[in-house]
Amino acid sequence: MKTRNNNSALVSFEELKCFIRNILVQAGLPGDDADKVATLMARADLQGSDGHGVIRLPQYVKRIRAGGINTKPDIKVVRERAAMAVVDGDNAMGHLAVSYAAELAIEKARQTGVAWVGTRRSNHAGPASLYAGMPIKHGMIGVYFAVGNANHLPPWGGAEMLLSTNPIAIGVPAGKEAPIVLDMATTVAAYGKVKAKAKRGEMMPEGWMIDRQGRPLLDPNRADEGFLLPIGGHKGYGLALMVGILAGRLHGAAMGRDVVDFNKDHTTPTNTGQAILAIDLAAFGDPALFAAEIDSLIQDIRNSEKLPGTERIWLPGEQSHARRLEYQRSGIPISGGVVRELSILADELKVEPLRGVEDTR
Amino acid sequence: MKTRNNNSALVSFEELKCFIRNILVQAGLPGDDADKVATLMARADLQGSDGHGVIRLPQYVKRIRAGGINTKPDIKVVRERAAMAVVDGDNAMGHLAVSYAAELAIEKARQTGVAWVGTRRSNHAGPASLYAGMPIKHGMIGVYFAVGNANHLPPWGGAEMLLSTNPIAIGVPAGKEAPIVLDMATTVAAYGKVKAKAKRGEMMPEGWMIDRQGRPLLDPNRADEGFLLPIGGHKGYGLALMVGILAGRLHGAAMGRDVVDFNKDHTTPTNTGQAILAIDLAAFGDPALFAAEIDSLIQDIRNSEKLPGTERIWLPGEQSHARRLEYQRSGIPISGGVVRELSILADELKVEPLRGVEDTR
Repeated sequence: MKTRNNNSALVSFEELKCFIRNILVQAGLPGDDADKVATLMARADLQGSDGHGVIRLPQYVKRIRAGGINTKPDIKVVRERAAMAVVDGDNAMGHLAVSYAAELAIEKARQTGVAWVGTRRSNHAGPASLYAGMPIKHGMIGVYFAVGNANHLPPWGGAEMLLSTNPIAIGVPAGKEAPIVLDMATTVAAYGKVKAKAKRGEMMPEGWMIDRQGRPLLDPNRADEGFLLPIGGHKGYGLALMVGILAGRLHGAAMGRDVVDFNKDHTTPTNTGQAILAIDLAAFGDPALFAAEIDSLIQDIRNSEKLPGTERIWLPGEQSHARRLEYQRSGIPISGGVVRELSILADELKVEPLRGVEDTR
Repeated sequence: MKTRNNNSALVSFEELKCFIRNILVQAGLPGDDADKVATLMARADLQGSDGHGVIRLPQYVKRIRAGGINTKPDIKVVRERAAMAVVDGDNAMGHLAVSYAAELAIEKARQTGVAWVGTRRSNHAGPASLYAGMPIKHGMIGVYFAVGNANHLPPWGGAEMLLSTNPIAIGVPAGKEAPIVLDMATTVAAYGKVKAKAKRGEMMPEGWMIDRQGRPLLDPNRADEGFLLPIGGHKGYGLALMVGILAGRLHGAAMGRDVVDFNKDHTTPTNTGQAILAIDLAAFGDPALFAAEIDSLIQDIRNSEKLPGTERIWLPGEQSHARRLEYQRSGIPISGGVVRELSILADELKVEPLRGVEDTR
């Protein structure tokens, strides 16, 4: 574990979830919706996706109170064929629109073998892995694409930020092993990680961002003076562009110049787009055999020869899985800066603050 | 244009296609099949995918003559639901198995909106972009995944090559503009590019490969002493792994330790897996509107502000498109080394050699 800042706290999943729920209800969300969003947000923190969990709550509340989120949305299907649908999120909290899309994709894939459900008029929905993981317990592979909620990436060779960190996540069921869950921004670092660095008062490593002169940018508080860098240079640019088209443009959601920077603008609907592809393993063969093969693959990789200096070879999602188990036992660490910000929010909304216990590790 | 080697030739698409067809027929392929494969191989060279075109012909012939390819295959569907199928390639030339899969995916997507067709017992099929591009003229987006035909990539931190360059390709129709076609290995360089460097007698840039001590490896003739590097470090490893699962393991095709190195073993069936996802734009909205929006997106990107030193911002596939137009006009350049190798092959198989004209550019 990294060293935590002073005054960081350890909170249980239940306490964190209830806190988020209470805040969202006070901000105007119906109880059931608040519950759903709070569960997903607390799950983000539980797996260590700390750029996408409770750290986003003040921003979400600001947007809700400014009228930038519809708290009584009518989420519905607007285009449909047997193996696809487009869901209009009616400017709901993204967690609600994407959960709806994922559930529908799973239901459709059960019939047709694979199904694609996309969203338009959705919003930021937290870590991609939450949604790519949803088909797993139904015996399906999940593939998730999303348009990021602020443009931080220029085309390769460009200086105008027309693209976002547009993430890809893929969840694959295993047998006795934990599922393999890849969750990656198409940039070297996700913007949520830049924000988390800023909140923790840490500098960024070289290679995450450059400034407008192409020089390395290390201070996360100066993030708006530069751009994120794509993985693999022009390849990451191409991938971010394609994810933007598949998650956004295809469904009539914002992409390119239309993307609203939700860090700066709290009222304009973001018209966020996401896509989830569910692949029913039972259509392809015996799911139990597939699970056993994935277990062997995991073990082959984990036990394979290491480069000098490597302690352990990890599978995608394995570290999040380990963190989830650890945090379930000992509590989820919330940094001092975030605790303080949440206390102010709790005060404002007259909600019982997060207590937790002091993190003395 | 780069400077060409001595004795390189310029050949027309038609001449190249006929030459490949004649060789394949002499090697034992039926005329129709030889024609299909030759067309796709010549198209690879026509778009400048020179690691995947006629350069592969000697290797294909060696494999066919060694009995490693079935020249009279029964390609058929072995698993099927409305929006998916698994195609058994019966150890055919990969070009035939994947074309079959792409055509079926397009047909299915017309009904269900999206469709996924995967292959098992297929073989190396040339550049991924050829297949991702097939749905385009049917008003569809194509997404293509493949398991590479030799493992050159260890897991992140590992020294055993359990993964391949497993490519991703995505083709998106535009209106007046050329389609956007991304074709990327999940490694910094595809192995085909390493081979092309070797044939051209050029060194590799740093960052393509490392040796077993983790030092940069620059000589493409020493490629088997080292590993390819994944894009974005652990991210590219995760992506290569997931593409391997989606294209291979899902369909009962080879992946991980099962992968046969087709550069060294010419007889064992490779059991190659590929996947093609067709997305019918008409299911999602008005395809003409989509095409116009993609045109605007392309123009926004092309005309956006450039970093100092950038001459032009390219869209994925735009350089291949430009090359295709140029090579259609002035001929396809084939390097001297490849021309000589093909002459030997033509001699052996009693086929009229490639003539072309001397490349004096």
